[in-house]
Amino acid sequence: MSLSRRGFIASAGAGVALGAAVGAGAQAYADSSEPVDAVDLSTSYDFYTGSHQVGIATPPQRHCIFMTFDLVAGATSKDLQVLLATWSAAIAQLQAGRTVGQMEPISLSAVATDTGEAYGLSTAGLTVTVGLGPGVFDKRLGLAAHRPKLLAPLPALPSESLDPKLTGGDLSVQACADDPQVVYHAIRDLARLGRGVVEVGWTVMGFGRASAGAEQSTPRNLMGYKDGTRNVSTEAQRAEFVWVDDDAAWAAGGTYQVARKIQMDIEIWDSATMQTQHEVFGRTKVAGAPLTGTREFDTPDFHATAGGKPIIDPDSHVALASPENNRGLRILRRGYNFTDGLNEAGQLDAGLLFIAYMNTPEAFIRLQTKMGRSDKLNEYITHVGSGVFFVPPAPKPGHYLAEQLFG
Amino acid sequence: MSLSRRGFIASAGAGVALGAAVGAGAQAYADSSEPVDAVDLSTSYDFYTGSHQVGIATPPQRHCIFMTFDLVAGATSKDLQVLLATWSAAIAQLQAGRTVGQMEPISLSAVATDTGEAYGLSTAGLTVTVGLGPGVFDKRLGLAAHRPKLLAPLPALPSESLDPKLTGGDLSVQACADDPQVVYHAIRDLARLGRGVVEVGWTVMGFGRASAGAEQSTPRNLMGYKDGTRNVSTEAQRAEFVWVDDDAAWAAGGTYQVARKIQMDIEIWDSATMQTQHEVFGRTKVAGAPLTGTREFDTPDFHATAGGKPIIDPDSHVALASPENNRGLRILRRGYNFTDGLNEAGQLDAGLLFIAYMNTPEAFIRLQTKMGRSDKLNEYITHVGSGVFFVPPAPKPGHYLAEQLFG
Repeated sequence: MSLSRRGFIASAGAGVALGAAVGAGAQAYADSSEPVDAVDLSTSYDFYTGSHQVGIATPPQRHCIFMTFDLVAGATSKDLQVLLATWSAAIAQLQAGRTVGQMEPISLSAVATDTGEAYGLSTAGLTVTVGLGPGVFDKRLGLAAHRPKLLAPLPALPSESLDPKLTGGDLSVQACADDPQVVYHAIRDLARLGRGVVEVGWTVMGFGRASAGAEQSTPRNLMGYKDGTRNVSTEAQRAEFVWVDDDAAWAAGGTYQVARKIQMDIEIWDSATMQTQHEVFGRTKVAGAPLTGTREFDTPDFHATAGGKPIIDPDSHVALASPENNRGLRILRRGYNFTDGLNEAGQLDAGLLFIAYMNTPEAFIRLQTKMGRSDKLNEYITHVGSGVFFVPPAPKPGHYLAEQLFG
Repeated sequence: MSLSRRGFIASAGAGVALGAAVGAGAQAYADSSEPVDAVDLSTSYDFYTGSHQVGIATPPQRHCIFMTFDLVAGATSKDLQVLLATWSAAIAQLQAGRTVGQMEPISLSAVATDTGEAYGLSTAGLTVTVGLGPGVFDKRLGLAAHRPKLLAPLPALPSESLDPKLTGGDLSVQACADDPQVVYHAIRDLARLGRGVVEVGWTVMGFGRASAGAEQSTPRNLMGYKDGTRNVSTEAQRAEFVWVDDDAAWAAGGTYQVARKIQMDIEIWDSATMQTQHEVFGRTKVAGAPLTGTREFDTPDFHATAGGKPIIDPDSHVALASPENNRGLRILRRGYNFTDGLNEAGQLDAGLLFIAYMNTPEAFIRLQTKMGRSDKLNEYITHVGSGVFFVPPAPKPGHYLAEQLFG
């Protein structure tokens, strides 16, 4: 196996004397073959596309807050209708770089509609993506006849250890942008607008490096490995694997969203040898190449052997997740790193906010059933949060999200 | 009082019918008088400046993680010396966009030195600023003779409600950059390098909008108000208020750092009327002007009255913090917003990571004693975390942080 080595020995100043281990073998982050790493904060996305909601095919921005909401007891179909119309109008404003209403009312006895912390900031590529959980279509609201036909709570899956406080949800909101304050403002003001109809459920705040599929380099997760090398990235793939077309008529152009909060035991991971890490992922670390290749986008060869053993372990992450080993199955993953600071043991509390889009939740269930059983990565990760949602298509101008439900 | 109004009524699409409140009075974030909001991720700062550490006078980057560390029982002066030399070498590497050592060792049985998640990313203006807490100079290490003369634990201050888990620290590390993954990587790898000598104490992860003093617009806190309008921003002010020059010889060019984690009751704040918010800050919200002026940088007139009452309440935040009312006193504030997701009541858990630099901790003590007693803002905020540190000057090439302590 050939390891890509781009390191150079750097002068470490005073560290040479007392901190020698630090300088040795230091590697520059920057790879001259990669494009310039810059953020254009003037990007904006239209909300009223009339087809798919943004935030799915949109190249991942650097920040993401995912938050679920639950309908309060006694909420009606009309309440939900008003909420979705209100949120639609607000999201259109936010994505256009506007407040959701007055930030400084002329009447001093009034309370501001917008909380104001994003005033003066650019649009930063904000996208807000709204999903409807299975509970929206239960008996409470009388909307059962409109249920997207594959929308149901996820079954229990192998090796997960879900925290009841981090599961489910009647609505999901995924807000992504290249500025953290723009993301926070969007989530906060949507939560305010929902008061009285919904309560917040669970939330994860993620960050990551922007990536535009093959055009930019693949982001790394907090295990230091590239994540998303073989992701769904073309419109043809999205047509095949992401967008719904044989569901309820109102649902056409929508998609199913699965969100998981995945805790990583990164301090244990950090003490694993290079060989263990390579075996777990089935890839090298710097290059992100499959162990049977030398470059990131080399196709893994799951049949190659060395000394009678497969070079890529069949229980490695790449082998279990690979389309070749799953009858061609793919899902669109939108992964963000998260950190919650320190846990009670004083260790870094971190992991992956895994959001995936697919035209059937069965795709995730099949993949995760298999990976939950035997993925070598399971020794270092735990799925602690989970939800499934149907993401309706985007509204046309003059309409709002899921309007057809309330005919 | 004149209110700056730059809003316009935006078409809110479908929202007009059902979500009308949302569109009304919407205000565009973007102010054409402000410079383009873009981030150049190629900025880098040299560590071996030989004068002040970076991250103090450096224009605030968009992300910041503040973390404290405590010496383990039995740690010696030599252990601390090796740690400071190792961290110095590592910080120099990190700020130059390099790993802190091998990310992919050639020997597969080796464990990587660098965790790898920042590989391929730009420098993003990373600065790492290290401080020494009072505990470094107590009897444990035999360094008491070198104690910076004003370094001592902060006294109890009015209206604070400190969480013992969020106070103190033998060492502080403030890592700031325009990329969250670069910041996280720096903190994580420094924590790894400290294992066996220090344990992590408390941490806050902050975000905000970049600001370069008068050259860029002032960032807003999560109350929607501009924060930092009258901050220390020139080298002359820093010479007067920030850099130490009559302390121990080794300390010249250093500064004292006070860090506070300030919780905001933002949901209560959000329900306050415009008048209340104006009175609390003594400023308007959109423009950030003092209530006696029309523009942000107008000097507040604390003597102006209307109907026999002061226009700016003497207990407003601006009045209590103002140099005019504190015998000219100023401190350099480096504030970041933070959010910890949801609290146990399901409310947004957010606030301000307040880091300030000054040539005497007495400056903070005086200001906070006064504000803790009567600041109208106290109804909406709580100081829950606190630490004080001495930040040594930067080392010259070939040397390391606080080297003179170990002569």
